[in-house]
Amino acid sequence: MQKSEQLYEGKAKKVFKTDDPEVYIVDYKDDATAFDGLKKGTIVGKGVVNNRMSNLLFQMLEKKGIPTHFVKELSERETAVKKVSIVPLEVIVRNIAAGSFSKRFGVEEGTVLKCPTLEFCLKDDDLHDPMINEYHILALGLASKEDLETITDMTFRVNDALKEFFLSIGIELVDFKLEFGRTTDGKIILADEISPDTCRLWDSKTHEKLDKDRFRRDLGGVEDAYHEVMRRIGLEK
Amino acid sequence: MQKSEQLYEGKAKKVFKTDDPEVYIVDYKDDATAFDGLKKGTIVGKGVVNNRMSNLLFQMLEKKGIPTHFVKELSERETAVKKVSIVPLEVIVRNIAAGSFSKRFGVEEGTVLKCPTLEFCLKDDDLHDPMINEYHILALGLASKEDLETITDMTFRVNDALKEFFLSIGIELVDFKLEFGRTTDGKIILADEISPDTCRLWDSKTHEKLDKDRFRRDLGGVEDAYHEVMRRIGLEK
Ligand SMILES: Nc1ncnc2c1ncn2[C@@H]1O[C@H](COP(=O)(O)OP(=O)(O)O)[C@@H](O)[C@H]1O
Ligand SMILES: Nc1ncnc2c1ncn2[C@@H]1O[C@H](COP(=O)(O)OP(=O)(O)O)[C@@H](O)[C@H]1O
Ligand SMILES: [Mg+2]
Ligand SMILES: [Mg+2]
Repeated sequence: MQKSEQLYEGKAKKVFKTDDPEVYIVDYKDDATAFDGLKKGTIVGKGVVNNRMSNLLFQMLEKKGIPTHFVKELSERETAVKKVSIVPLEVIVRNIAAGSFSKRFGVEEGTVLKCPTLEFCLKDDDLHDPMINEYHILALGLASKEDLETITDMTFRVNDALKEFFLSIGIELVDFKLEFGRTTDGKIILADEISPDTCRLWDSKTHEKLDKDRFRRDLGGVEDAYHEVMRRIGLEK
Repeated sequence: MQKSEQLYEGKAKKVFKTDDPEVYIVDYKDDATAFDGLKKGTIVGKGVVNNRMSNLLFQMLEKKGIPTHFVKELSERETAVKKVSIVPLEVIVRNIAAGSFSKRFGVEEGTVLKCPTLEFCLKDDDLHDPMINEYHILALGLASKEDLETITDMTFRVNDALKEFFLSIGIELVDFKLEFGRTTDGKIILADEISPDTCRLWDSKTHEKLDKDRFRRDLGGVEDAYHEVMRRIGLEK
């Protein structure tokens, strides 16, 4: 599998074409951003952690019947993925109140929610990824009712699988963000990444943060947190 | 029906107890606010327009099977209503993009939506009435699934009835905000008001604004707009 033309450089990854028209290569960077791109920095080794961790989780989800973009890990930082047209929505699940949810609704961080919540944000940096609801999505033609049902169903199944997995390694899955895409033959599959950049992960006992909030909030030990998750997953010693 | 203790003075109305424990009196003021209370002013005669117009519309909706808080018009500005415990949600319907929706999603004002949208905002001035979704409402225990279904069903029926009514008097119903409450015996009914303060109303032909946007945006002719709506409704000459 050969990298050809670079298609896109995002905040955390680069996307390349390959000799297979249905396959892209994603290349994970160490660049970190927060607060709508206002805060910028580097988390040494993050690209490796996020690539390997995403791939392990995507393969675990595939086994549970969730179709994902994962094709093959090519190197520490590079993975071949199915080319999709990304549905322009960030799909956020919350099990415990934190971050923007706590601020927005005045709910103390750490409050266990009565039930998991799903929310959609419009993936549009210029508009600052505003929260959007299903009526809005249909009214603006951003996705069909069937697509939304598929995405909703898959998202809650991903939450169940990830919650169980993280719990087994002493981690609470507080919240996370998913992206979905449509393949050339019209199927909706899970794309992008699942990593400490896109999940809030707290130690089950101490509630210590093991995710990008250490970078966002200048808590120190950022790299250590990423590696601690990798150790618990069994991908590092 | 005698007014007794004042319970609450809001931005546009005062609410009083009466000798009947199940009945309140609302008293409509001429005070106008906009942009989260940042802009303040007076619209002379607004209280009379909003009171009489709300009452006419509530009675029309009752005839169509929508239960409302309306009991009896007592004077130009005062109405007896069923006491409810307000569900802390603003329920917004949009038929045409305008205002915060246009800004939030970068959609030109006046764009006809592919389908009407419903959105919930948490009624909390300190938090600036943030948009909230049904999962959040359930997760925070703000309303039950059944309540949300009742409110959603009633809201779309209100939209159909109001759209038809306004169209018959040459007005496009662009969007509007409803509030619902729970009576002592546990029933969800439509409460608060339906007026040019809480609806965007555009002349069907000229698209001239006949609502509070004239005040919000300093367009002039504010009082005239409120009276023009009253004339078309048949409540003024
Ligand atoms: N399988 C895929 N096919 C096409 N694009 C993808 C795929 N998976 C992820 N992407 C997109 O590639 C980009 C990944 O780079 P990232 O640095 O996360 O970008 P961003 O700054 O937009 O979040 C994102 O825009 C993401 O939506
Ligand atoms: N039938 C009712 N019973 C109890 N409260 C009501 C009823 N109808 C409306 N209200 C509440 O009375 C207040 C009306 O005053 P208003 O000036 O509109 O207040 P606000 O500044 O909160 O919007 C609102 O808080 C509204 O929710
Ligand atoms: Mg990204
Ligand atoms: Mg009000």
